[in-house]
Amino acid sequence: MPTHPNPYRQDLDRNAANHVPLTPLSLLDWAADIFPERCAVIHGALRLSWAQVRERSRRLASALRAMDIGEGDTVAVMLPNTPPMAEAHFGVPMSRAVLHCINTRLDAATVAFVLDHSDSKVLIADREFSPTVKVALEQLRAQGKRVPAVIDVDDPEYDGPGERLGPIEYETFIAGGNASFAGLAPEDEWDAIGLNYTSGTTGNPKGVVVHHRGAYLNALGNVLSWNLPRHPVYLWTLPMFHCNGWCFPWTLAAVAGTSVCLRKVDAALIFSLMREHRVSHYCGAPIVHSLLISAPAALRSGIDWPVKAMVAGAAPPAAMIEGMATLGFDVTHVYGLTEVYGPSAACAKHDDWAVRPLAEQVDLNGRQGTRTQVQEGCTVLDPQTMQEVPRDGQTMGEVMFRGNVVMKGYLKNPKATQEAFADGWFHTGDLGVLHPDGYVKLKDRAKDIIISGGENISSIEVEDALYKHPAVMAAAVVARPDDKWGETPMAFVELRADHQPADAAAEAALAQAIIEHCRVHLARFKCPREVRFTELPKTSTGKIQKHLLRAQVKSASAIG
Amino acid sequence: MPTHPNPYRQDLDRNAANHVPLTPLSLLDWAADIFPERCAVIHGALRLSWAQVRERSRRLASALRAMDIGEGDTVAVMLPNTPPMAEAHFGVPMSRAVLHCINTRLDAATVAFVLDHSDSKVLIADREFSPTVKVALEQLRAQGKRVPAVIDVDDPEYDGPGERLGPIEYETFIAGGNASFAGLAPEDEWDAIGLNYTSGTTGNPKGVVVHHRGAYLNALGNVLSWNLPRHPVYLWTLPMFHCNGWCFPWTLAAVAGTSVCLRKVDAALIFSLMREHRVSHYCGAPIVHSLLISAPAALRSGIDWPVKAMVAGAAPPAAMIEGMATLGFDVTHVYGLTEVYGPSAACAKHDDWAVRPLAEQVDLNGRQGTRTQVQEGCTVLDPQTMQEVPRDGQTMGEVMFRGNVVMKGYLKNPKATQEAFADGWFHTGDLGVLHPDGYVKLKDRAKDIIISGGENISSIEVEDALYKHPAVMAAAVVARPDDKWGETPMAFVELRADHQPADAAAEAALAQAIIEHCRVHLARFKCPREVRFTELPKTSTGKIQKHLLRAQVKSASAIG
Repeated sequence: MPTHPNPYRQDLDRNAANHVPLTPLSLLDWAADIFPERCAVIHGALRLSWAQVRERSRRLASALRAMDIGEGDTVAVMLPNTPPMAEAHFGVPMSRAVLHCINTRLDAATVAFVLDHSDSKVLIADREFSPTVKVALEQLRAQGKRVPAVIDVDDPEYDGPGERLGPIEYETFIAGGNASFAGLAPEDEWDAIGLNYTSGTTGNPKGVVVHHRGAYLNALGNVLSWNLPRHPVYLWTLPMFHCNGWCFPWTLAAVAGTSVCLRKVDAALIFSLMREHRVSHYCGAPIVHSLLISAPAALRSGIDWPVKAMVAGAAPPAAMIEGMATLGFDVTHVYGLTEVYGPSAACAKHDDWAVRPLAEQVDLNGRQGTRTQVQEGCTVLDPQTMQEVPRDGQTMGEVMFRGNVVMKGYLKNPKATQEAFADGWFHTGDLGVLHPDGYVKLKDRAKDIIISGGENISSIEVEDALYKHPAVMAAAVVARPDDKWGETPMAFVELRADHQPADAAAEAALAQAIIEHCRVHLARFKCPREVRFTELPKTSTGKIQKHLLRAQVKSASAIG
Repeated sequence: MPTHPNPYRQDLDRNAANHVPLTPLSLLDWAADIFPERCAVIHGALRLSWAQVRERSRRLASALRAMDIGEGDTVAVMLPNTPPMAEAHFGVPMSRAVLHCINTRLDAATVAFVLDHSDSKVLIADREFSPTVKVALEQLRAQGKRVPAVIDVDDPEYDGPGERLGPIEYETFIAGGNASFAGLAPEDEWDAIGLNYTSGTTGNPKGVVVHHRGAYLNALGNVLSWNLPRHPVYLWTLPMFHCNGWCFPWTLAAVAGTSVCLRKVDAALIFSLMREHRVSHYCGAPIVHSLLISAPAALRSGIDWPVKAMVAGAAPPAAMIEGMATLGFDVTHVYGLTEVYGPSAACAKHDDWAVRPLAEQVDLNGRQGTRTQVQEGCTVLDPQTMQEVPRDGQTMGEVMFRGNVVMKGYLKNPKATQEAFADGWFHTGDLGVLHPDGYVKLKDRAKDIIISGGENISSIEVEDALYKHPAVMAAAVVARPDDKWGETPMAFVELRADHQPADAAAEAALAQAIIEHCRVHLARFKCPREVRFTELPKTSTGKIQKHLLRAQVKSASAIG
């Protein structure tokens, strides 16, 4: 191979004219420069143009700088999907601080933990969450930890309880900022833009650090993987605190779209906002879509344009995909984790799928798919050999990602970071198979696999069967200890409102009918031995908390 | 500002899992992995799927490596818009060599110059260009310079004259390559992917070196600025040798589109291919669009779907924009230069423009616009102060770009590189104004301004007036030396076929009528004093070669 000097590396260096750090902040400038008057945010009666969003973000950044906030500092927010939350996605990084989005459903002790671990110097919090925040701050104070300066958001659209906790309200705070402050670009595109704690089911949460480069690329990647048009009207059913709303606050700047804010997920409100603002796009976990599917048809009347929905989640049930098709909503299935900025794999559709039988379409579209154009790899590897598993739809391995849309690592946790990145891939902890077309299909979280008589049972497969029963609104299957088989599947089921059993006898009959139904769809050893009706515990993003169900089963076994 | 250690820079480094060099080569893998069977290339009766394009590109890369081609080497191509040209955009960089696309209309001496200056080791050339290539190689040999190894492309779709010049034909060459060679990603995204010589009007051409990072970003930028859907059918009216076809060979991989090849620009052929393959998109210089506008209506019959056209060029005449609207084609106006990878500014449309009077729409859409989402800046600066000119539509300055879609620099020409990047901006040499909305409108090349009695006259403004006359097919205005005024405008006009004057008297009357027509639209001092009818000299990309007209005027003045 050539050993002569490379002429293409002589006198051709980076300079201010030909290289700038990639950052989604430049997308805000694009939208505000080119579409300054266009509506960027709708919240109740409030309308903000892209020029206003930029001005407010600049004021926020400037006011933070005046508080001595900058490089290496953390600004936490505990906010619903409101204008201040959208602005924080620009204003906080424009001050060179890192945006720490706190899950608004966390308990006070966990909020105290993440505020302390992240060393957050400022907390911008909506009054609705004051009860939790107040206790968290008291805990920090009692422990002699740093207590962040609180900026209260007193949203005119919120009239519920909750006191102000800090010395200044958000609008007053940003009014004191300088509208002509242009904001600071990152020094390096590898610098952090965001910090998002994962809701680990065991142990302390881990702080996922994401960088400007990845945020920029995934913001564009959403446009590519969803074929997002210019000027979409986007309804915020997905919490912005969740993986920075899958990067959509930044994506919407790249297409000069409109954000329709939403403080809480409610079917009547969602359909009403869709109708009023002619919403074209929304995202969410399967539970959001199921909610819409189950809503009375009257709520949906008048929505006669194509609404596009993006759904993610470890395993959206097949019945949900089918339900959306029936609803006339066009669903794109994506997959990801906080560590990969939300969705960075997508189940890209093929034209010839549309002519297949519906059940087959559902199976094809229900897969996690493969990498987007901005990610480098998403596949299933044998974690021992790091070789791709055979494309047989059978051999399980661990789903792994690599590429530019992968976190920097976990904050102050080099051990977890190294483990996550072992052998040059990000290990998701999700188990899956590869189909012949290279698409990934999740089978389970490693810890959710049920091993019965030495055979692996995918809890997702059993849940898919349960969802096909008309009475089932939501289902979760976990392992129940069994003296003979080691483990057997046990189902927890949330019933639809119109299928509640009248009495204990009807309940027993329904449970039996559901088990019989599973036998039609599954090998007998995979069928649940017991079906229990209950409201399923869910995280704020709609993920069913299986560890709580598992704990319930374990304690019952211990007693029993 | 904080002086404590930045926790977001501790133990959070780049590694193989979270950082890969940006390169459009990963887009080929995306298309070939996810849509392997989908049609990527149509050429006559030939169909190539994305899997085949990847396989052929890999073979090409592997065969080049076997010739000891690699890092820092240059592979030249002199090819029309055919499958080997599309493959070269992937296969050459996959060998780590730099793709040098030669303008197929260049004369032998210039071809010899660029082959020598770039130190091209291999030349892949279509048989059609053998007469020129043969002479160029003879010149190199005579000068004792390196003569590249020639690989002939003997395209079955070409039955014209031209001998084979090298020892091996392209198909045999790539058949000898290894289809399982995965290709090499660049070591660094700042590494060169392409070399494109600008057709300078004076002096030797300069070699513009473009990098993987910019090629990747502009490939995605085309999708964003044109709202390109998944799976477009793209007709290759724009030469791929011109700024790498504005990055579209790579863009089409990012959306798994289909390339319809085209060896030469011909209205009947273009409409026939559009009809046969249901072409959805094409790009070109104004002359291509004018050709289609002027074509007999019968040629266009049956094309009843919306065709989207992208037009670039220093100044597409307003009449062309109007003509396209009449044709029913949706035109997006973009702007750029070889140094910024083709288009990296766009005239983004606003919804409210559509309700304005047509003439106003034409004016609005006829501007160069502003930066795309992947570029950082495009504006008009006073080159002395480097301050933005007032947004008054009047004050002229130099159009400048900066950002990630700007070349590395000029090969082996540090002086020109430094001049081009002075003060942190890429200086285009184009003169323009800023409109109140921040959109750039080109006024002229610096050297094309006519100074008459101390007043600047924009040759573009005069040409715009000329184009509004029904007899005018193409027009170019240059300065004519004048004893009294210094300079006055002189017009060269190419007439439409159906407006050719019958005799000298009719010609003189038409010239006078055109001058009168200009007086309706322009201040009197801006009107041409003379109109000469002639076929205008054009570059291969359709740019009118004003320097030839200027030379004609000068020599006439010298004689007269």
